[in-house]
Amino acid sequence: MLPEPRTYQSQSACPVARTLDVVGDRWTILVLRDLSWGRRRFSALLESLEGISTNLLSDRLKRLEEHGMVERTFYSDHPPRAEYKLSAKGKAFVPVLVALREYGDAWEPAKGALSGQVD
Amino acid sequence: MLPEPRTYQSQSACPVARTLDVVGDRWTILVLRDLSWGRRRFSALLESLEGISTNLLSDRLKRLEEHGMVERTFYSDHPPRAEYKLSAKGKAFVPVLVALREYGDAWEPAKGALSGQVD
Repeated sequence: MLPEPRTYQSQSACPVARTLDVVGDRWTILVLRDLSWGRRRFSALLESLEGISTNLLSDRLKRLEEHGMVERTFYSDHPPRAEYKLSAKGKAFVPVLVALREYGDAWEPAKGALSGQVD
Repeated sequence: MLPEPRTYQSQSACPVARTLDVVGDRWTILVLRDLSWGRRRFSALLESLEGISTNLLSDRLKRLEEHGMVERTFYSDHPPRAEYKLSAKGKAFVPVLVALREYGDAWEPAKGALSGQVD
Protein backbone atom coordinates (compact mmCIF):
# COMPACT_ATOMS: atom_id res chain seq x y z
CA MET A 1 0.00 0.00 0.00
CA LEU A 2 1.17 3.54 -0.59
CA PRO A 3 2.35 4.89 2.74
CA GLU A 4 0.09 7.95 2.90
CA PRO A 5 -3.36 7.49 1.39
CA ARG A 6 -4.68 10.88 0.36
CA THR A 7 -7.73 12.44 -1.10
CA TYR A 8 -6.91 15.13 -3.59
CA GLN A 9 -9.14 18.05 -4.53
CA SER A 10 -8.27 17.38 -8.13
CA GLN A 11 -6.11 14.97 -10.09
CA SER A 12 -3.61 17.76 -10.71
CA ALA A 13 -2.99 17.88 -6.97
CA CYS A 14 -1.69 14.30 -7.06
CA PRO A 15 2.00 13.90 -7.92
CA VAL A 16 1.39 10.52 -9.59
CA ALA A 17 -1.21 12.06 -11.92
CA ARG A 18 1.02 15.06 -12.64
CA THR A 19 3.89 12.77 -13.56
CA LEU A 20 1.63 10.71 -15.83
CA ASP A 21 0.47 13.89 -17.56
CA VAL A 22 4.02 14.12 -18.89
CA VAL A 23 5.17 10.52 -19.25
CA GLY A 24 1.94 8.51 -19.12
CA ASP A 25 2.44 6.92 -22.47
CA ARG A 26 4.28 3.73 -23.31
CA TRP A 27 6.64 5.20 -25.92
CA THR A 28 7.67 8.16 -23.78
CA ILE A 29 8.81 5.82 -21.03
CA LEU A 30 10.67 3.58 -23.50
CA VAL A 31 12.43 6.65 -24.96
CA LEU A 32 13.52 7.62 -21.43
CA ARG A 33 14.72 4.03 -20.88
CA ASP A 34 16.88 4.11 -24.02
CA LEU A 35 18.31 7.53 -23.16
CA SER A 36 19.13 6.23 -19.67
CA TRP A 37 21.20 3.52 -21.39
CA GLY A 38 23.22 6.21 -23.12
CA ARG A 39 21.65 6.04 -26.59
CA ARG A 40 21.98 9.58 -27.94
CA ARG A 41 21.32 9.69 -31.65
CA PHE A 42 17.95 9.76 -33.32
CA SER A 43 18.90 6.87 -35.61
CA ALA A 44 20.04 4.71 -32.65
CA LEU A 45 16.79 5.40 -30.80
CA LEU A 46 14.74 4.66 -33.91
CA GLU A 47 16.50 1.33 -34.39
CA SER A 48 16.23 0.33 -30.75
CA LEU A 49 12.58 1.30 -30.33
CA GLU A 50 11.22 -1.45 -32.54
CA GLY A 51 7.94 -0.31 -34.07
CA ILE A 52 8.10 3.41 -33.32
CA SER A 53 7.67 5.73 -36.31
CA THR A 54 9.97 8.64 -37.13
CA ASN A 55 7.20 11.13 -36.42
CA LEU A 56 6.28 9.57 -33.12
CA LEU A 57 9.88 9.48 -31.90
CA SER A 58 10.35 13.08 -33.01
CA ASP A 59 7.22 14.13 -31.18
CA ARG A 60 8.14 12.30 -27.95
CA LEU A 61 11.66 13.75 -27.92
CA LYS A 62 10.32 17.25 -28.51
CA ARG A 63 7.79 16.87 -25.72
CA LEU A 64 10.43 15.57 -23.31
CA GLU A 65 12.65 18.50 -24.25
CA GLU A 66 9.78 20.94 -23.63
CA HIS A 67 9.26 19.38 -20.21
CA GLY A 68 12.95 19.74 -19.39
CA MET A 69 13.66 16.01 -19.15
CA VAL A 70 15.80 15.82 -22.29
CA GLU A 71 18.53 18.10 -23.63
CA ARG A 72 19.27 18.36 -27.32
CA THR A 73 22.68 19.40 -28.61
CA PHE A 74 24.13 19.53 -32.11
CA TYR A 75 27.22 17.50 -32.85
CA SER A 76 27.37 18.55 -36.51
CA ASP A 77 26.37 21.79 -38.23
CA HIS A 78 26.68 20.63 -41.86
CA PRO A 79 24.43 18.75 -42.07
CA PRO A 80 22.73 19.63 -38.77
CA ARG A 81 22.70 16.55 -36.53
CA ALA A 82 21.37 16.50 -33.01
CA GLU A 83 21.94 14.20 -30.12
CA TYR A 84 19.83 13.79 -27.02
CA LYS A 85 20.56 13.11 -23.39
CA LEU A 86 18.73 13.11 -20.10
CA SER A 87 18.82 16.34 -18.09
CA ALA A 88 19.01 16.24 -14.29
CA LYS A 89 15.20 16.10 -14.31
CA GLY A 90 15.27 13.21 -16.78
CA LYS A 91 17.82 11.33 -14.67
CA ALA A 92 15.51 11.78 -11.68
CA PHE A 93 13.02 9.56 -13.52
CA VAL A 94 15.40 6.58 -13.53
CA PRO A 95 14.07 5.16 -10.21
CA VAL A 96 10.68 4.75 -11.93
CA LEU A 97 12.36 2.79 -14.75
CA VAL A 98 14.16 0.63 -12.21
CA ALA A 99 10.88 -0.07 -10.39
CA LEU A 100 9.16 -0.94 -13.70
CA ARG A 101 12.01 -3.29 -14.57
CA GLU A 102 12.01 -5.01 -11.20
CA TYR A 103 8.25 -5.51 -11.43
CA GLY A 104 8.55 -6.89 -14.98
CA ASP A 105 11.40 -9.22 -14.06
CA ALA A 106 9.41 -10.63 -11.16
CA TRP A 107 5.86 -10.65 -12.50
CA GLU A 108 5.82 -10.47 -16.29
CA PRO A 109 8.18 -13.22 -17.40
CA ALA A 110 9.35 -13.18 -20.98
CA LYS A 111 7.56 -15.69 -23.15
CA GLY A 112 9.24 -18.32 -25.29
CA ALA A 113 12.59 -18.29 -27.03
CA LEU A 114 12.69 -14.54 -27.53
CA SER A 115 13.36 -14.04 -23.85
CA GLY A 116 17.14 -14.28 -24.25
CA GLN A 117 18.99 -11.01 -24.11
CA VAL A 118 22.15 -9.97 -25.90
CA ASP A 119 24.77 -8.23 -23.81
CA MET B 1 21.46 5.58 -15.35
CA LEU B 2 19.96 2.12 -15.17
CA PRO B 3 22.54 -0.14 -13.57
CA GLU B 4 22.75 -2.72 -16.38
CA PRO B 5 22.38 -1.33 -19.87
CA ARG B 6 21.16 -4.09 -22.16
CA THR B 7 20.37 -4.70 -25.74
CA TYR B 8 17.33 -6.85 -26.21
CA GLN B 9 16.56 -9.00 -29.21
CA SER B 10 13.03 -7.70 -29.11
CA GLN B 11 10.99 -5.30 -26.99
CA SER B 12 9.20 -8.28 -25.44
CA ALA B 13 12.54 -9.38 -23.98
CA CYS B 14 12.72 -6.16 -21.94
CA PRO B 15 10.93 -6.24 -18.58
CA VAL B 16 10.15 -2.51 -18.76
CA ALA B 17 8.41 -2.98 -22.11
CA ARG B 18 6.56 -6.07 -20.89
CA THR B 19 5.30 -4.16 -17.86
CA LEU B 20 4.17 -1.27 -20.03
CA ASP B 21 2.29 -3.68 -22.30
CA VAL B 22 0.00 -4.23 -19.32
CA VAL B 23 -0.03 -0.92 -17.46
CA GLY B 24 1.36 1.56 -19.99
CA ASP B 25 -1.66 3.76 -19.95
CA ARG B 26 -2.39 6.68 -17.66
CA TRP B 27 -5.77 5.46 -16.41
CA THR B 28 -4.57 1.95 -15.64
CA ILE B 29 -1.88 3.33 -13.36
CA LEU B 30 -4.33 5.71 -11.66
CA VAL B 31 -6.75 2.81 -11.06
CA LEU B 32 -3.91 0.86 -9.43
CA ARG B 33 -3.08 3.95 -7.34
CA ASP B 34 -6.65 4.21 -6.06
CA LEU B 35 -6.85 0.48 -5.30
CA SER B 36 -3.56 0.76 -3.41
CA TRP B 37 -5.26 3.38 -1.23
CA GLY B 38 -7.95 0.85 -0.36
CA ARG B 39 -10.76 2.10 -2.60
CA ARG B 40 -12.76 -1.01 -3.45
CA ARG B 41 -16.08 -0.13 -4.97
CA PHE B 42 -16.75 0.82 -8.55
CA SER B 43 -18.63 3.94 -7.49
CA ALA B 44 -15.77 5.09 -5.23
CA LEU B 45 -13.25 4.60 -8.03
CA LEU B 46 -15.48 6.40 -10.50
CA GLU B 47 -15.81 9.38 -8.17
CA SER B 48 -12.13 9.53 -7.34
CA LEU B 49 -10.90 9.16 -10.92
CA GLU B 50 -12.11 12.55 -12.08
CA GLY B 51 -12.84 12.43 -15.80
CA ILE B 52 -12.85 8.65 -16.34
CA SER B 53 -15.97 7.22 -18.00
CA THR B 54 -17.90 4.22 -16.70
CA ASN B 55 -16.90 2.17 -19.74
CA LEU B 56 -13.24 3.06 -19.47
CA LEU B 57 -13.10 2.21 -15.75
CA SER B 58 -14.93 -1.05 -16.42
CA ASP B 59 -12.50 -1.92 -19.19
CA ARG B 60 -9.39 -1.12 -17.13
CA LEU B 61 -10.61 -3.14 -14.14
CA LYS B 62 -11.42 -6.09 -16.38
CA ARG B 63 -8.02 -5.93 -18.03
CA LEU B 64 -6.25 -5.72 -14.65
CA GLU B 65 -8.27 -8.72 -13.46
CA GLU B 66 -7.32 -10.67 -16.61
CA HIS B 67 -3.67 -9.90 -15.91
CA GLY B 68 -4.00 -11.09 -12.34
CA MET B 69 -3.31 -7.70 -10.74
CA VAL B 70 -6.84 -7.18 -9.41
CA GLU B 71 -9.26 -9.53 -7.68
CA ARG B 72 -13.00 -9.05 -7.91
CA THR B 73 -15.34 -10.35 -5.23
CA PHE B 74 -19.06 -9.92 -4.72
CA TYR B 75 -20.26 -8.36 -1.49
CA SER B 76 -23.94 -8.53 -2.46
CA ASP B 77 -25.86 -11.03 -4.57
CA HIS B 78 -29.16 -9.15 -4.86
CA PRO B 79 -28.39 -6.88 -6.59
CA PRO B 80 -24.97 -8.20 -7.64
CA ARG B 81 -22.30 -5.80 -6.39
CA ALA B 82 -18.60 -6.31 -6.82
CA GLU B 83 -15.60 -4.91 -5.07
CA TYR B 84 -12.04 -4.87 -6.25
CA LYS B 85 -8.72 -5.18 -4.55
CA LEU B 86 -5.09 -5.64 -5.48
CA SER B 87 -3.80 -9.21 -5.68
CA ALA B 88 -0.25 -10.04 -4.60
CA LYS B 89 0.81 -9.22 -8.15
CA GLY B 90 -1.01 -5.88 -7.99
CA LYS B 91 0.60 -5.04 -4.66
CA ALA B 92 3.98 -5.76 -6.22
CA PHE B 93 3.35 -2.76 -8.49
CA VAL B 94 3.21 -0.33 -5.54
CA PRO B 95 6.97 0.48 -5.68
CA VAL B 96 6.37 1.86 -9.19
CA LEU B 97 3.58 4.10 -7.80
CA VAL B 98 5.87 5.25 -5.00
CA ALA B 99 8.63 6.08 -7.50
CA LEU B 100 6.15 8.00 -9.71
CA ARG B 101 4.95 9.94 -6.68
CA GLU B 102 8.44 10.79 -5.48
CA TYR B 103 9.36 11.99 -8.95
CA GLY B 104 6.18 14.09 -9.18
CA ASP B 105 6.67 15.59 -5.73
CA ALA B 106 10.21 16.61 -6.58
CA TRP B 107 9.95 17.58 -10.26
CA GLU B 108 6.34 18.31 -11.23
CA PRO B 109 5.13 20.77 -8.60
CA ALA B 110 1.41 21.35 -8.34
CA LYS B 111 0.33 24.60 -9.97
CA GLY B 112 -1.69 27.33 -8.28
CA ALA B 113 -4.25 27.16 -5.52
CA LEU B 114 -5.46 23.67 -6.39
CA SER B 115 -2.24 22.25 -5.02
CA GLY B 116 -3.65 21.91 -1.50
CA GLN B 117 -4.66 18.42 -0.52
CA VAL B 118 -7.42 17.27 1.75
CA ASP B 119 -6.50 14.64 4.31
